[in-house]
Amino acid sequence: MDTSENFGAAAKAAATQLPTLSAEQRIAALEAVIAGLQANASEIFAANEKDLAAAKEAGLDAPLLKRLKFDQAKLDDCIGGIKMLCKLPDLVGKTIKSTELAPELILSQVSCPLGVVGIIFESRPDALVQISTLCIKSANACVLKGGIEALNTNTALHKVLVEATRGILPDGWLQLIATRDDVKKLLTMDKYIDLIIPRGSNSFVQYVMNNTQIPVMGHADGICHIYIDKAADIDLATKVSVDSKCQYPAVCNAVETILVHEAAAAQYLPKLKAGLEEKHATLRGCEKCRAIIDCDPATDEDWATEYLDYIVSVKIVSSMDEAIAHINEYGSGHTDCIITADPATAELFMNIVDSADVFWNCSTRFADGFRFGLGAEVGISTSKLHARGPVGVEGLLTYKWKLRGNGHTVAPFANGETSFTHKPL
Amino acid sequence: MDTSENFGAAAKAAATQLPTLSAEQRIAALEAVIAGLQANASEIFAANEKDLAAAKEAGLDAPLLKRLKFDQAKLDDCIGGIKMLCKLPDLVGKTIKSTELAPELILSQVSCPLGVVGIIFESRPDALVQISTLCIKSANACVLKGGIEALNTNTALHKVLVEATRGILPDGWLQLIATRDDVKKLLTMDKYIDLIIPRGSNSFVQYVMNNTQIPVMGHADGICHIYIDKAADIDLATKVSVDSKCQYPAVCNAVETILVHEAAAAQYLPKLKAGLEEKHATLRGCEKCRAIIDCDPATDEDWATEYLDYIVSVKIVSSMDEAIAHINEYGSGHTDCIITADPATAELFMNIVDSADVFWNCSTRFADGFRFGLGAEVGISTSKLHARGPVGVEGLLTYKWKLRGNGHTVAPFANGETSFTHKPL
Repeated sequence: MDTSENFGAAAKAAATQLPTLSAEQRIAALEAVIAGLQANASEIFAANEKDLAAAKEAGLDAPLLKRLKFDQAKLDDCIGGIKMLCKLPDLVGKTIKSTELAPELILSQVSCPLGVVGIIFESRPDALVQISTLCIKSANACVLKGGIEALNTNTALHKVLVEATRGILPDGWLQLIATRDDVKKLLTMDKYIDLIIPRGSNSFVQYVMNNTQIPVMGHADGICHIYIDKAADIDLATKVSVDSKCQYPAVCNAVETILVHEAAAAQYLPKLKAGLEEKHATLRGCEKCRAIIDCDPATDEDWATEYLDYIVSVKIVSSMDEAIAHINEYGSGHTDCIITADPATAELFMNIVDSADVFWNCSTRFADGFRFGLGAEVGISTSKLHARGPVGVEGLLTYKWKLRGNGHTVAPFANGETSFTHKPL
Repeated sequence: MDTSENFGAAAKAAATQLPTLSAEQRIAALEAVIAGLQANASEIFAANEKDLAAAKEAGLDAPLLKRLKFDQAKLDDCIGGIKMLCKLPDLVGKTIKSTELAPELILSQVSCPLGVVGIIFESRPDALVQISTLCIKSANACVLKGGIEALNTNTALHKVLVEATRGILPDGWLQLIATRDDVKKLLTMDKYIDLIIPRGSNSFVQYVMNNTQIPVMGHADGICHIYIDKAADIDLATKVSVDSKCQYPAVCNAVETILVHEAAAAQYLPKLKAGLEEKHATLRGCEKCRAIIDCDPATDEDWATEYLDYIVSVKIVSSMDEAIAHINEYGSGHTDCIITADPATAELFMNIVDSADVFWNCSTRFADGFRFGLGAEVGISTSKLHARGPVGVEGLLTYKWKLRGNGHTVAPFANGETSFTHKPL
């Protein structure tokens, strides 16, 4: 593992060479990773056993232990993912658009890798394999920081990936860092790092966003809303609401606040309450809600809270405008949904609500790269620039403009001797 | 002019409504602007006379006075630009990609405006018209800050645009701010402003980049390079070098440093010197250069200097790798060019050099939105995220994901009852 001062410079040097590799060379590297993982499986599992033993001793809870575990099943999943990546179309070095500016002066907009991507990820060691192979596919170098509890596993995986790709990819393409000091250094390396993707708690992501000049892709929180319109089908509304909250509440795309049109409240609220209770979830309501159903009160703090739990806040509104104003005030620009039988109302909602994902009559839990069919997902972005919503390989690419001439100068165009043809090719 | 605390909130409120307008409504707004400018021309010219008189009194130099002037010719140019904008294809609300995730569950990636764009521009009042009409075309609200020396003209233009578009565009879509305090406020308004485009001096752009959490699009400096390869055609190299430096040296895409392969230096340097002298430009050379031609010495400071003047620094290198290492160390990621007769060398250079524009055998001065055929240009970006190089209307757009279902929940997909079709539409 490289914990030297120079992990950024080393990754950058590799990034300079990566765009010169062909798609076939990058696939050869992915295949070498598969072979390396298979050949060194027992070594990786042994390292993971150490991490698991330490975690048990430290009293980590069962879900965390499950995520930390890296066994044959996880390895098979990783290998399956790499095989899928091999089959995905190659997007590096593709001509997006070509224009003849003048005879023999040809402009091409060409896709290319971002360069060096810094990714700070949670406890799952399989994330190391997924992210680094995504970087191979997209010709990016990367600096990775995993959870400290997975250090032995990550170190073993890093060693396997580096050794398997030696001679195929430029040295230094994969840097593993381990300490908080390394992360601090990473955040200052705007000379070397082109993008940081932080995954983890809201406060950690916010910390990263506030402490670096490097572009950050990700989302700090996910306060997602469902608006139940007056023209909603009440049974559909109930079914979608319960799934959005209870199918898996600990994630960013679970609904946190439901806004109900006053004309739908009397019918909807009792059904929602029953549906939630069946899943052992509770609701907190505004004053008007509590006049219809028995529930705990919701305060202003609730509208700003991402519960990540079996709790949902509910507010009665007198119009869609009021619902949208609430979403704009408290939302995260992540995922917001309308339930209505009226297509024109749905379109208006989807056009006005300024979120990465705007849904109509379906669960907020669909907001996910795999479900969207993007293949692997690097993360979900609530930024409006570059990539928005679930981000796949395309989010790790940029483009450059290549202009090929034959001694062309600007002077004759500026003085009117000649003019641009601007012919799309 | 709105100089209240709430210019950001007012623009955001308008931005919420703008995506609901049709392309025809936005074209009607552009046509109303043309009519308004024509009907109020004398009022605008009178305001400009005031600015010009004050500027003359303050002793502003001739080029600045020329840029500040807003007369019938400038008005005609502005109107010509708006007419061109009307004819450009509309890019707002276009479906980029559609996928059937499952029967009756349809995902669409749809282009949409960024929201509110803050633009700080230089002394030309015509820039106000160009930028605000670009924002109409792209359905963005905007906050503009012009040069203080153009305040009367900008105030008059702002009034005409606001009055002409009243009833067509939502109130508040165009905010003009005037003071440095307003700019400071603008930089803190990450709740309201989606993108800032600063134009002006390097130090100002750097100040903006360092003092806001809002994404910034632009470039602080433009240290552009030409590398003269050993396989360069020397006459072509000379012609392109002189044009890149002298055709208009006060701009970001003029060349600042020329890197010459040692095998080409003896032939090229005397010709370059003669060509520059013809245009009254001078060169500063490294020690090896000065063994071949008589010139001032270049120091390390020269490699890091954007002259914006009739001066160019020249360095002899022993390989393309050394040239690329120099560009990576001192360049701005703006525009870098190779002169060579060898296509393979050219491709390698263009693939490895990590700049927005990578050119082969043509002047760096072609790096410009109009010359690239993008129509109007908002600026040139040296960021790798979102838009890179010359930026047109597309740089003011983002996308959102619309998912239309019929009561779909995630549970049956998660428990294996049903599966995704992921059919491209």
